[in-house]
Amino acid sequence: MSWNKVAVVGAGLIKMGELFEQSYEDMAAGAFRAAVASVDKGFDPQAVEAAFVATQRGTLWGQEGIGGNTVPSAIGLAGIPCTRIENACPSGSDAFRVGAMAVASEVHDLVLVIGVEKMRDKSTEEGLLSRAAAGHPILTRGETAPVLFAPFATRHMHEFGTTREMLASVAVKNHHNGALDPYAHFQDEVTIEQVLASPPVCSPLHLLDCCPQTDGAAAVLLAPAERAHEFTDRPVFVAGFGVATDHPYLHEKVSFVGLKATVDASKRAYAMAGIGPADVDMCEVHDCFTITEILDVEDLGFFEKGKGGVASLEGETSLTGRIPVNTSGGLLAKGHPIGATGIAQITECWWQLRGDAGERQVAIRNGFALQHNVGGRGSGVSVVNILTANP
Amino acid sequence: MSWNKVAVVGAGLIKMGELFEQSYEDMAAGAFRAAVASVDKGFDPQAVEAAFVATQRGTLWGQEGIGGNTVPSAIGLAGIPCTRIENACPSGSDAFRVGAMAVASEVHDLVLVIGVEKMRDKSTEEGLLSRAAAGHPILTRGETAPVLFAPFATRHMHEFGTTREMLASVAVKNHHNGALDPYAHFQDEVTIEQVLASPPVCSPLHLLDCCPQTDGAAAVLLAPAERAHEFTDRPVFVAGFGVATDHPYLHEKVSFVGLKATVDASKRAYAMAGIGPADVDMCEVHDCFTITEILDVEDLGFFEKGKGGVASLEGETSLTGRIPVNTSGGLLAKGHPIGATGIAQITECWWQLRGDAGERQVAIRNGFALQHNVGGRGSGVSVVNILTANP
Repeated sequence: MSWNKVAVVGAGLIKMGELFEQSYEDMAAGAFRAAVASVDKGFDPQAVEAAFVATQRGTLWGQEGIGGNTVPSAIGLAGIPCTRIENACPSGSDAFRVGAMAVASEVHDLVLVIGVEKMRDKSTEEGLLSRAAAGHPILTRGETAPVLFAPFATRHMHEFGTTREMLASVAVKNHHNGALDPYAHFQDEVTIEQVLASPPVCSPLHLLDCCPQTDGAAAVLLAPAERAHEFTDRPVFVAGFGVATDHPYLHEKVSFVGLKATVDASKRAYAMAGIGPADVDMCEVHDCFTITEILDVEDLGFFEKGKGGVASLEGETSLTGRIPVNTSGGLLAKGHPIGATGIAQITECWWQLRGDAGERQVAIRNGFALQHNVGGRGSGVSVVNILTANP
Repeated sequence: MSWNKVAVVGAGLIKMGELFEQSYEDMAAGAFRAAVASVDKGFDPQAVEAAFVATQRGTLWGQEGIGGNTVPSAIGLAGIPCTRIENACPSGSDAFRVGAMAVASEVHDLVLVIGVEKMRDKSTEEGLLSRAAAGHPILTRGETAPVLFAPFATRHMHEFGTTREMLASVAVKNHHNGALDPYAHFQDEVTIEQVLASPPVCSPLHLLDCCPQTDGAAAVLLAPAERAHEFTDRPVFVAGFGVATDHPYLHEKVSFVGLKATVDASKRAYAMAGIGPADVDMCEVHDCFTITEILDVEDLGFFEKGKGGVASLEGETSLTGRIPVNTSGGLLAKGHPIGATGIAQITECWWQLRGDAGERQVAIRNGFALQHNVGGRGSGVSVVNILTANP
């Protein structure tokens, strides 16, 4: 039996990209407007009772120097309670969970969860991802994000015969899906040959194995399940969620062919939703690198450990495959504006469950969609949210 | 009728100060141990189901580069869900509220709320408070925290005849209380003459009108009200809370003799708790500067607007006064380790309501204590939590 205490009654995002022309507040306002406009029976923006803002590194930037509490004023809601949620790459996913708990607690009925991140206003060198290694001053020396994930690719190849072509097939699929997504940062197809021939970043990961740095924002509107029909006749419910932390540093990991936090978080989410992986119709998972998606689809239980690469190469995760993965284009093509990422993934799940995904629409059989992020020195924390169209 | 769905079953903090010898994780572990040790009937640390970590500027520092998700591993709880809450100076207060909603949502029973902040590991120039002005690159030029609050002092003096002696009386009282608090950063009495003669920082605020930069950590353990008696025969309940945002920039303020966010937040908290200011036995409020406490005690409804300075000078906010304010020494004497501040204030309220405050103990008549922070470019957000010893 799914949790189903909270409904998603609206969701939307802005076109992802290098948005130098938009301020942090502009992006937030755009996402909020999109979410409000998406509500089938209309939604008075002033009805929002509280907001949760996901921004990972706001304090490193100018505009958003003070966490999320400048957002309400900027989007016309000055006065409402507003809390910033930060949880590394899953910041948006976790804000969604916290927002859902706020509704379930009966303290607030109508809650806005909004993710915003400016990634491109500084040079790449000064930028966000180059600081991802911030942590212990000795243990983490030189550990940029590609450095944190490459060893998993190397070990997965060694243990299971995963190939660079299999990794590349993830990028090919996700860029294909992104080309169908009007909100994606990149909207061009790529070939396996192009991925293989792209410049090396951290062997065996090449440029097209990596997600871009992207500016973006996304928002969802939550309501108690029993009030969902005030806003829509096609509500989507929060079926369950799970969060798990892991020891954050590489030298503490017990395995380099899977991410323990993802396994643990998904078990909690499946238990809360009362389902298993076989019940999931589509998923949006954390493909910061091609190898990450392969780890994810195994750790989330869609494929046996070691079989994720083959499954991708054989099309089992494509739009028409057994379990469509990253129908939006994923982080690789849609982009990874960190605080916004999880909420943009949830928006895609919401569209898919409602049959609104256009050319990207997949078959919805059981009525469940899963959203996943992992982050925090690579894999220090994972969040899984499960949505359902079933009442 | 108070909310009372959630109980505080344990609370504790570490001695505040310049803790160069302790890492961020050391401080977190110290606070967690103190909270666990405070539980009357004992508490198995492994029973914690989820954590909320308040840290304001973690991402600006080395150790805590990735938000709060490194904390569980560091305190022996690797694996549990852990979320960082950031809301400027009220980060700790807001984490307490979010933790309480998580318990009330029935998703988690036993929740740790922990605040940790390292303020002193960098030079003052590079340090946290010098960056408080981060915000709009033009509108906020030069706006350090004293600059944000001094205009309120000037205007309050102009409109109500508040004097520097009245401001100084706040510092005298809070340093007196701090001298009785073994956890306070500063434990020496000061005189009105010393405050008046201290060097000017931003007129009319002098050095002893300002809180120090302090390292610290504090933690509370929450449980559903109906399970409180498993842990203690003297439970304290969350009676209510309120959060309010305001336009963040000085040029948007409608008044310089009060903080609208505090008024709005307190109204919400009083309504949820079903009480008014007259029912509050003691309070811990945000005295980042002496003027701030004067604004607070007016905005929270304890004194008529304009009367806060006189009330302080006349001892109405002392340990034996009509409404004892900042019995712990407040931010001025106990210190202001930002993420930890609100949770340390809640710990003081918890001690006072339980009669455990030793030499600082005040008379508890109605069974209510109030905790308050304001912050975010001075007063962009305020959080008020009300605790009660009444079932």
